[in-house]
Amino acid sequence: MIKVVAKSVVKKEKIEKYKKMVDELIEKTRKEDKNIKYELYQDVDNPQVITFIEEWEDHKSLEEHMNSKHFEKIVPQLNKLRETSEVNVYKKVK
Amino acid sequence: MIKVVAKSVVKKEKIEKYKKMVDELIEKTRKEDKNIKYELYQDVDNPQVITFIEEWEDHKSLEEHMNSKHFEKIVPQLNKLRETSEVNVYKKVK
Repeated sequence: MIKVVAKSVVKKEKIEKYKKMVDELIEKTRKEDKNIKYELYQDVDNPQVITFIEEWEDHKSLEEHMNSKHFEKIVPQLNKLRETSEVNVYKKVK
Repeated sequence: MIKVVAKSVVKKEKIEKYKKMVDELIEKTRKEDKNIKYELYQDVDNPQVITFIEEWEDHKSLEEHMNSKHFEKIVPQLNKLRETSEVNVYKKVK
């Protein structure tokens, strides 16, 4: 299992648009065979910080996700609404 | 439920020491009444990035954790092994 934390700082005036735009991505990603979890979180102190916390069976399933039609269609649109973005791919240690 | 992502960049030569030093913190935190999950992850591309991903019943339980004896004892020791550290506290959106 691998864990992904994809943290974005979304443009202040685009937060609501962003939260609507992710719906299709979330719906289609959760239907992917090897997706275990795909959840969206918002920082309680700074609403501009919006983060996907994801679980995947393995690296291959994450690669397939990033090559999927829904990812390639929607993520570039989301990027336009973001100020910054960082992705960490993790293995569990303890 | 709230989610905490506490991401640190650990000094390169201190990684193994850090991974040992967290043991007591993890063991005692998991025994706290209102802790749901307390897991340690390491970035697959950069082993210096070591991150706690946590789940707590509510804000009060997180505050109690941060005032606990084990937190107050061990976290300052961990801080000395870190280059940087950032904590986000999240609510689930979707």
